[in-house]
Amino acid sequence: MKTVNGISASVIARLPRYYRFLGELLNTGVTRVSSQELSERMGLTASQIRHDFNCFGGFGQQGYGYNVEQLKNEMAAILDLNAPKEAILVGAGNMGRAVANQMNFEAMGFRLTAIYDSDPNLQRLKIKGIPILPAAEMLDRCAEKKPDMAILCLPQAAAPEVVDGLIMMGVDSFWNFSHYDIHAKYPAANVENVHLSDSLMTLSYKIKNSETGGFVC
Amino acid sequence: MKTVNGISASVIARLPRYYRFLGELLNTGVTRVSSQELSERMGLTASQIRHDFNCFGGFGQQGYGYNVEQLKNEMAAILDLNAPKEAILVGAGNMGRAVANQMNFEAMGFRLTAIYDSDPNLQRLKIKGIPILPAAEMLDRCAEKKPDMAILCLPQAAAPEVVDGLIMMGVDSFWNFSHYDIHAKYPAANVENVHLSDSLMTLSYKIKNSETGGFVC
Repeated sequence: MKTVNGISASVIARLPRYYRFLGELLNTGVTRVSSQELSERMGLTASQIRHDFNCFGGFGQQGYGYNVEQLKNEMAAILDLNAPKEAILVGAGNMGRAVANQMNFEAMGFRLTAIYDSDPNLQRLKIKGIPILPAAEMLDRCAEKKPDMAILCLPQAAAPEVVDGLIMMGVDSFWNFSHYDIHAKYPAANVENVHLSDSLMTLSYKIKNSETGGFVC
Repeated sequence: MKTVNGISASVIARLPRYYRFLGELLNTGVTRVSSQELSERMGLTASQIRHDFNCFGGFGQQGYGYNVEQLKNEMAAILDLNAPKEAILVGAGNMGRAVANQMNFEAMGFRLTAIYDSDPNLQRLKIKGIPILPAAEMLDRCAEKKPDMAILCLPQAAAPEVVDGLIMMGVDSFWNFSHYDIHAKYPAANVENVHLSDSLMTLSYKIKNSETGGFVC
């Protein structure tokens, strides 16, 4: 099991879900919640939630539950959402444009500062006021600006050379839509891989098995 | 913990990863793999892998490992990738277009047959040969065509009414990019939620804690 500083990947992957869910509770006026209520609404066990929270000190649940706003703020601090890290986007095709347009980067701990693409037709455009720059300028600009993270929305075949160059410039964190396995070559890099197809295949499984009965484990 | 027919959600979520990883092994000419090798390459424990596989009968590992092609075919059958289910896309904005253009639906158990949008400017366009139809025609067409699944790439505020209508027409499976909580109203629906922001926040955590040391659990 992979860990980051002793915290298992599965605990880390649940932190954004807690943060998101606590925000939804606040939006509906809920100010206190028990681990039992959290577990019922989130599809986790109460002991799993207590274990997860204990990894970060426990957040001191009283008999009457957690303070939702306080817990959300603690999650934001743990996820480091309050001090935006600089991100660049590599690839302004369909997925790159969707990501640039739809994500609220500032709310997720990042600030998008530059977009690069090798297509000259895209290089005169802007997305949310951010100009699309020639890919050929990327490494020089990275050497100067030292971004913290690169979002890879480029074809898998183009990814290895781009990642090699970025790593050389000190960019070692990647939000990776390309399906290129960065960890195989750079095991120390910070990587989040996005595989939309995994979610689609999981849905295929659910449809099949909600109809037919399926397996028992 | 949520289950589908007795299989836990976390096991189900790993099935596409196995399938994808076995495909990568085959592409590089690997024909046999042990659970130990799988675990090292995938960041899981060998006992976790054996447990997952045992949920589906075990796949009969011999002393010399699993047959990669056979195991991949078994995974494809479990995930129901070989008999495409009919899918419609609701919303042809940035994310909808990215999804329609980039996903290989036929390889993931689906066939995209119609795209709907309420914007008249989009209604003359096609994506991969599939026409973008007026949203107002959606329910009548669904009553006739009975699609198996709807991909929701529309704003969260528009989602409740669309989901109500689709459920009434018998569409009860959703690949949901809208952040609308379908299960709160329709607990029996088959839903895969895509929250790209979760992955971005997880990366924020990793960057912060690879630099500073972080917590110990």
